[in-house]
Amino acid sequence: MATHPLEEILHPRAIAVVGASDGGGRGSGFLAPLIELGYEGQIYPVNPKYTEVMGIKAYGSVRDIPGVVDYVISSVPASQVLGMILDCAEKGVRAIHLYTARFSETGRKEAADLEKEILNQARKAGIRLIGPNCMGVYYPDQRISFSSGMPRESGSVGLASQSGSAIFEIVDLAAQRGLHFSKAISYGNALDFNESDYLEYFAQDPNTDIILMYIEGVRDGRRFYDTLRRTTASKPVIIVKGGRGQSGTRATASHTASLAGSMEVWKTAVRQAGAVSVRHPGELADVAAAFHFLPPITGRKVGVAGGSGGSSVLAADLCEEAGLDVVPLPTEIRQELRAQGSPIWDWIGNPADMSIRIDRNWDTGDMLKIMAGNSSFDLLITFVHGHFHGGQGTISAETFLKQYRLNELNNKPLLAVMEEQGRAGNDDSEQAWVQKLMAEVKVGLIAAGVPFYPSIERAAEAGSKLVDYYQRRESR
Amino acid sequence: MATHPLEEILHPRAIAVVGASDGGGRGSGFLAPLIELGYEGQIYPVNPKYTEVMGIKAYGSVRDIPGVVDYVISSVPASQVLGMILDCAEKGVRAIHLYTARFSETGRKEAADLEKEILNQARKAGIRLIGPNCMGVYYPDQRISFSSGMPRESGSVGLASQSGSAIFEIVDLAAQRGLHFSKAISYGNALDFNESDYLEYFAQDPNTDIILMYIEGVRDGRRFYDTLRRTTASKPVIIVKGGRGQSGTRATASHTASLAGSMEVWKTAVRQAGAVSVRHPGELADVAAAFHFLPPITGRKVGVAGGSGGSSVLAADLCEEAGLDVVPLPTEIRQELRAQGSPIWDWIGNPADMSIRIDRNWDTGDMLKIMAGNSSFDLLITFVHGHFHGGQGTISAETFLKQYRLNELNNKPLLAVMEEQGRAGNDDSEQAWVQKLMAEVKVGLIAAGVPFYPSIERAAEAGSKLVDYYQRRESR
Repeated sequence: MATHPLEEILHPRAIAVVGASDGGGRGSGFLAPLIELGYEGQIYPVNPKYTEVMGIKAYGSVRDIPGVVDYVISSVPASQVLGMILDCAEKGVRAIHLYTARFSETGRKEAADLEKEILNQARKAGIRLIGPNCMGVYYPDQRISFSSGMPRESGSVGLASQSGSAIFEIVDLAAQRGLHFSKAISYGNALDFNESDYLEYFAQDPNTDIILMYIEGVRDGRRFYDTLRRTTASKPVIIVKGGRGQSGTRATASHTASLAGSMEVWKTAVRQAGAVSVRHPGELADVAAAFHFLPPITGRKVGVAGGSGGSSVLAADLCEEAGLDVVPLPTEIRQELRAQGSPIWDWIGNPADMSIRIDRNWDTGDMLKIMAGNSSFDLLITFVHGHFHGGQGTISAETFLKQYRLNELNNKPLLAVMEEQGRAGNDDSEQAWVQKLMAEVKVGLIAAGVPFYPSIERAAEAGSKLVDYYQRRESR
Repeated sequence: MATHPLEEILHPRAIAVVGASDGGGRGSGFLAPLIELGYEGQIYPVNPKYTEVMGIKAYGSVRDIPGVVDYVISSVPASQVLGMILDCAEKGVRAIHLYTARFSETGRKEAADLEKEILNQARKAGIRLIGPNCMGVYYPDQRISFSSGMPRESGSVGLASQSGSAIFEIVDLAAQRGLHFSKAISYGNALDFNESDYLEYFAQDPNTDIILMYIEGVRDGRRFYDTLRRTTASKPVIIVKGGRGQSGTRATASHTASLAGSMEVWKTAVRQAGAVSVRHPGELADVAAAFHFLPPITGRKVGVAGGSGGSSVLAADLCEEAGLDVVPLPTEIRQELRAQGSPIWDWIGNPADMSIRIDRNWDTGDMLKIMAGNSSFDLLITFVHGHFHGGQGTISAETFLKQYRLNELNNKPLLAVMEEQGRAGNDDSEQAWVQKLMAEVKVGLIAAGVPFYPSIERAAEAGSKLVDYYQRRESR
């Protein structure tokens, strides 16, 4: 198989940052992370106003750079882009990331014309373009990033986002769930490389297992559909579509000059292509966490344990509304509880309301263990509570997590619900302590391979979408 | 108008806590908050095993108490309830809150029979019952609470919840949004007073402006519908129905012995009665905050400002999906921006993507102010961000909030979106600082009368439900 064109571009021997400055904002924004992460190729700041930027010798133009330059990051004004491309052509640059914006997305004819001319000129010079109007590439393994403060850890999630702000949000939300990225690319107006190129790249990338996309408009519908359908046969693709309604479609035009298209056609196509649709970055992180931590499952029968009365009732409703099957507690489990001498063997159900138990030594972990051992359940959901009455400051996250008996669940897929809430009226020190414990518990859950969710609703929807995907994949 | 029967019951001259002990759990759980909050009537612990509980003289039986006793809180085992009622009858007790559980909700015939017998005996003695199987009454103004750590502040929200755990959750979530309660009552199996009684009580209560309910099953459908319809003519009633699906219906039976009934009938009835339906406690707090802070509005035209590209596109989609009308930016506003010399007057839209602005002195507050002055908008939504690049530790919540120009918005209804997210990879001290600032900003928003939401989706849905209610109320 031929190497994908993006593969070479994403492994540049040297990067020039055109428009680099010490002045803060995007002038230094693209240079600083390369230095901080320790990008191993040469880094060349380019700005005629400086002889040195951030301690590195600066050049007046790309042409003046002595060594080879494969990749250029541009934050020069739109009016200077054509000139810069000429310089890059002379230098033998392979690709330019155009952070530069204010092209067709402004809705102004002269800006749209300039954008077309830029594409023509780049094509003539054999230079490929990422963007314009985008953040470009975050590739932790290559120590390339478009911003300081992005995680250094590399992972197996690939992300292509038409929006720059969405890429920050998605990487943030995913990192909080223990997910890290192989590469995340923000591609804006998709003038040259478009959504299908990025998808195709992630499809063949051995370091990417799960593909996330934020898409406003598709440049080539047929190609995208075919690529998507091929890709989903081996890797889950989870997509947020921006511009679903009338007002969103107006907004995509002024954001990335995208034609959002008919939502009905989109929904049908994405479903037929075997991809997973979600509505916003939070759901993207939810579903990605399910795919990352859980095995492929095609059954919808869920067991829920650990809530109290009202939360168990609503857990049943919300799981069912999300498309999961909240089966009655199997007779074998009742018999097992009876044999154990449980006084509530005939009363407890699924969801298992743990507030009705009498024996305080018999806890959520015990119920989860019994459910995990029963083939009536395809997946389990539990509540992880941060409420304490006494004992604060004395319990470690490790001890706290022991009650869930996570290592005795026979690898039955488990999702945890961790609602963010402080007991109203409690003093600040208790609040702070509970928050600290819950933060450590999250680290423990990630280590144990348990995805966690801010609500039962979001856990159930993530679990259901996971099953959707594998069911459709199996039936192809 | 005759005094509502609950009015006298909720103002007892003395409370006896039967089953009180020093031993933690519910034995001390009902006594401690009365002492802590400073309940002003007499408090009598009742437990034959003690001569004193928590420093207060204890009695062997309600009969032994020397003074008058209006109200009894019972946590004795189910088997002792009939005897206790006899004692209470002799003493002239007016009402008993039966925390005691394990009656019909167990699904066991003998337990259900005992429950019926309890009702008969209470009726014979002229004693009214709250419960059984519930937390009872939280009434901050009377310094009555069923738990330590509940807010001392009183407010104008009334809550009747069939579930005890839900009442904790709802009070917590509401308090985090700056909402406080006139009374919150958990009523469990609704053996005597039922959902209609509590609703009727809140309807006539001058201290209650907004009524929240968590209901699993309705004892008297006709009466509830009529009461609900009457009530919603003057006060919003927001209801979570537990037991919406098949599995949830099973769960309500084992939780409060409720017959959940047909969801189709329920949905139609609640809508026709003019009430607001939500799906879980989080949404209950969302919508309650909208009703509490915002004026009655019947228009759906929303202006959104303060996001960047992707979040503006998704804001448009999510507002539209929630039923709001994301109108194009009015021509007058474009002309006003042009007159001000804005270089993006022709490009910026609604939602107003603030990342495209060139003039950094022209910010979200300026756009909000312009939108607030325009009659094309019925309500506004803005994003309040906790992301900082530099400057941490130096900005106060007050300075931070100034950028939104909240006092120049002509009382145009405004909802704020505060997404909980930390910049991934940032160090802990920055995270902690941003969290602290955002906590203070929330206090500032509450003081300014601006409800806030964890996502654009939830803000839009709360705003839309507010409009729904007032539209239906107006059209009656």
